[in-house]
Amino acid sequence: MTSTTDRTDPLLSVVRAGLRTYDLGRPLTIGMPQSPNHPPYWHSLPRRHGDMVRADGGSAANDFISMGTHVGTHIDALAHVSQDGKLFGGEDAFDAGCGGRYEHLGVHTIEPMLRRGVLLDVPATLGVPRCEGGYEITAADLEQTAQAQGTPVESGDVVLIRSGWGQHFDAADGASYVGKETGVPGIGAEAARWLADRDIHAAGADTIAFECLRAGAGHSSLPAHRVLLVETGIYIIEAMALEELATDSVHEFTLVLVPLPLHGATGSPVRPLAVVRRD
Amino acid sequence: MTSTTDRTDPLLSVVRAGLRTYDLGRPLTIGMPQSPNHPPYWHSLPRRHGDMVRADGGSAANDFISMGTHVGTHIDALAHVSQDGKLFGGEDAFDAGCGGRYEHLGVHTIEPMLRRGVLLDVPATLGVPRCEGGYEITAADLEQTAQAQGTPVESGDVVLIRSGWGQHFDAADGASYVGKETGVPGIGAEAARWLADRDIHAAGADTIAFECLRAGAGHSSLPAHRVLLVETGIYIIEAMALEELATDSVHEFTLVLVPLPLHGATGSPVRPLAVVRRD
Amino acid sequence: MTSTTDRTDPLLSVVRAGLRTYDLGRPLTIGMPQSPNHPPYWHSLPRRHGDMVRADGGSAANDFISMGTHVGTHIDALAHVSQDGKLFGGEDAFDAGCGGRYEHLGVHTIEPMLRRGVLLDVPATLGVPRCEGGYEITAADLEQTAQAQGTPVESGDVVLIRSGWGQHFDAADGASYVGKETGVPGIGAEAARWLADRDIHAAGADTIAFECLRAGAGHSSLPAHRVLLVETGIYIIEAMALEELATDSVHEFTLVLVPLPLHGATGSPVRPLAVVRRD
Amino acid sequence: MTSTTDRTDPLLSVVRAGLRTYDLGRPLTIGMPQSPNHPPYWHSLPRRHGDMVRADGGSAANDFISMGTHVGTHIDALAHVSQDGKLFGGEDAFDAGCGGRYEHLGVHTIEPMLRRGVLLDVPATLGVPRCEGGYEITAADLEQTAQAQGTPVESGDVVLIRSGWGQHFDAADGASYVGKETGVPGIGAEAARWLADRDIHAAGADTIAFECLRAGAGHSSLPAHRVLLVETGIYIIEAMALEELATDSVHEFTLVLVPLPLHGATGSPVRPLAVVRRD
Repeated sequence: MTSTTDRTDPLLSVVRAGLRTYDLGRPLTIGMPQSPNHPPYWHSLPRRHGDMVRADGGSAANDFISMGTHVGTHIDALAHVSQDGKLFGGEDAFDAGCGGRYEHLGVHTIEPMLRRGVLLDVPATLGVPRCEGGYEITAADLEQTAQAQGTPVESGDVVLIRSGWGQHFDAADGASYVGKETGVPGIGAEAARWLADRDIHAAGADTIAFECLRAGAGHSSLPAHRVLLVETGIYIIEAMALEELATDSVHEFTLVLVPLPLHGATGSPVRPLAVVRRD
Repeated sequence: MTSTTDRTDPLLSVVRAGLRTYDLGRPLTIGMPQSPNHPPYWHSLPRRHGDMVRADGGSAANDFISMGTHVGTHIDALAHVSQDGKLFGGEDAFDAGCGGRYEHLGVHTIEPMLRRGVLLDVPATLGVPRCEGGYEITAADLEQTAQAQGTPVESGDVVLIRSGWGQHFDAADGASYVGKETGVPGIGAEAARWLADRDIHAAGADTIAFECLRAGAGHSSLPAHRVLLVETGIYIIEAMALEELATDSVHEFTLVLVPLPLHGATGSPVRPLAVVRRD
Repeated sequence: MTSTTDRTDPLLSVVRAGLRTYDLGRPLTIGMPQSPNHPPYWHSLPRRHGDMVRADGGSAANDFISMGTHVGTHIDALAHVSQDGKLFGGEDAFDAGCGGRYEHLGVHTIEPMLRRGVLLDVPATLGVPRCEGGYEITAADLEQTAQAQGTPVESGDVVLIRSGWGQHFDAADGASYVGKETGVPGIGAEAARWLADRDIHAAGADTIAFECLRAGAGHSSLPAHRVLLVETGIYIIEAMALEELATDSVHEFTLVLVPLPLHGATGSPVRPLAVVRRD
Repeated sequence: MTSTTDRTDPLLSVVRAGLRTYDLGRPLTIGMPQSPNHPPYWHSLPRRHGDMVRADGGSAANDFISMGTHVGTHIDALAHVSQDGKLFGGEDAFDAGCGGRYEHLGVHTIEPMLRRGVLLDVPATLGVPRCEGGYEITAADLEQTAQAQGTPVESGDVVLIRSGWGQHFDAADGASYVGKETGVPGIGAEAARWLADRDIHAAGADTIAFECLRAGAGHSSLPAHRVLLVETGIYIIEAMALEELATDSVHEFTLVLVPLPLHGATGSPVRPLAVVRRD
């Protein structure tokens, strides 16, 4: 009864043996915390059941959505950031956007990811529940965490840096997650270079800005974005939900991430998964 | 240097051995063919590089998107369709939408899928390049195709029904894909019941409406939606890109599909993948 | 050379003699202060000049806008508020919205206004630069102001109540205008009844909520909306720019207000004018 | 009882004597005919009555709108069109849009209009119910019409050119109004120069493109836009409802038009009025 093929495709065999999936994407809800630089997520139902019922008793409801692509859990395309007028690879940033879309480095050019993922649980290493606002996570923090966990960072990996700041995401006061007054923990240029030196594919964090933000300083400077997106072509994933992975001490996994192919856009909402075999 | 874990997690081992990924999602572009019942996809760049350059020479571009959730390649949540005032499981459809979102059967309740996927290549069975507009794909067509391919449909599968109509998606005239005048091929209630009887998890097609639409009849009746979404709780995926799978005769695979967790919405844009080991 | 007609149309004669126009509408800008209950105003240019230049050297730029209708200076349709399940005139509020639009009391049913307008400059009467947050403007305040100004309120008028709170609109901190922590000055049920008793056509204010909001209480209760919109069918105009009128002591004028005919909507952005002859 | 002021303000006296108002704006409805180059009008109710009822029995409904600014009845700002890289007055068109908005020539710079308006009823002159698709209205047509009506065009006027094509606006098939296959009647460069020579303030028409469009040619060239917007700084109003004015032979009136102050946008939806005294 079982087909020949599925006996031989090893991926399908593993899938059938049972997987455990961690959902690393935040639900998209009206009013969720975000940077004010981007159009917020908004949702409405133009048609609800009962609005228009067909003669046969059937009815359909539908949606109307408006949003930026850098709200909620999302991935930054290489087109998102430029430095001194250049995008990754040296393309002129100004010319690249002519026509209203980024043809070469837009989010539609990001291949779906099924890759080794590594969680670097920095607060576990530091012995704190979460990093403080404004704390700059260093290369030494990352190195020490990878060693302590026994999960060295390898070429092609997707590296997720947990600061613990994601604990604020669901706070009644959305402002605490954005952290304008407190600052937000994250890496700076130094740790970004450490990641780039390891030739990773993408880096993620549990904060909205990915970077270390000093209290009150806002986004005046984004050195980690520059190092990763512009200088080395490494994608950035933001506002990830990493608490559950940390609680379960899952530090290595298959990272599944499929950006929407929004033609020419600078980012995409995503719902990344960390997948391991079911115990 | 390799950690203990990745030697033992079988999924990661398979990922590292190399996978081939088929992209079953259509690019989201302004003006792509769609049903006029839904808000179209629209994209713009509120900020382009050069609009606001920071003192350190950095610049960021971003996006503004508006869309329905039943445009482009997308998945229907169970909340999308009701019959005689009831949703799947008997919930009152009118009450369910009160508050402007579907809490119990909205698209945020669809678990990410990593499952066996089966492509039923109906035109291959029928010996035609594609089914005609208005052709109703029958249970016998599906049965015969599954047998000919050696890929029986099993419980929990995601079944993708290729009609070949996806060849029209990129036509200069978007109207041919929508097929208002010609009709569109697809299954009706009879084949939907055949699928439901096999206890599948989701069904997909390469058309915008999934159903067989008669020429000129429009969406006056949607029996397959009723059977799958309302009566049996099986998700529907529409506007899939299935030609490449068919060309390569890939009839069985791991289907990866991760809906966006749009809280309370009736559907979500998706970019499904068919994944097999790399030869 | 002058036509016969324009000699005889008295309106045109007055127009030609010269008018002074006060702009009572706030500019619509991204990030302007608003209630978080509504989708914010957002604007982007999908096409800028240079994106697509025709062979003849011509180029067009265009816009993409998303917004609620109760942001910026706007008018509330009678469909906006219900009490005990009823809209103005007793229509069932629930049934009225079926179909996703308010057919009978939506903003498209508001006739364009060219009417007598009266500014009631309450702070001038009270001898303060502006009313305090949370101050409830009373019927006595309105009565006294109308008398002091020599501008009795008459049937059919549009009455604009200046609290002075509009001075906060352009504050760097948008939060001061919204006034969540300080409260906002405005009328309550008592003064609303005074207005209703005078059979006015519409009432406006220089605040976002029109009502007196107590510090920290938010929109838990909106008695003036109930009295005006639900009980007596009087339109409400919010977030008006009234400072210039007050500075010039223009208390009586022709009010010009033309809502957009947004079919079935509960409100519309407007740019009301106060017009008098040029001195 | 009447205040001193209103006895002396002549505008208010005329208003009180009674006015007749013609509504020249089309209702904004989902699916109305438009050019596919612009984001369509879409409306939804995020909150309907009953969704959230306060303890005191009150409830509010609200809206969510998305649209371009060149759909429905609208006005073109001078920033809308450029020629050879220049906007009106010689401003560099490319630089002008830097920052995502047109500061100097955006629609927020258009002053509200209360001006003499003239309807030029071209089909009445030609003795036809409406001009044919693709018919180019000439300067001679305009001259002859103005003379026949006894309404010479004067400096500062708003001139509305009726082609009769507005009769198609409400056709079941929206395509007939857009007229891609039939062409659309309108003026060309020659008649535009005739208007510009008369130093008018704005020109309007009952078509979506204002221009004469040849059958099948689309918007490949827009000479009247170039003459009016770029060369002479005259605003253009499109998709006006002019049939009722023509039926009543109202050829001269006060034109009231108040664009929304959409900061930096290239156009705005409007609801223009033609106002005369009540007979």
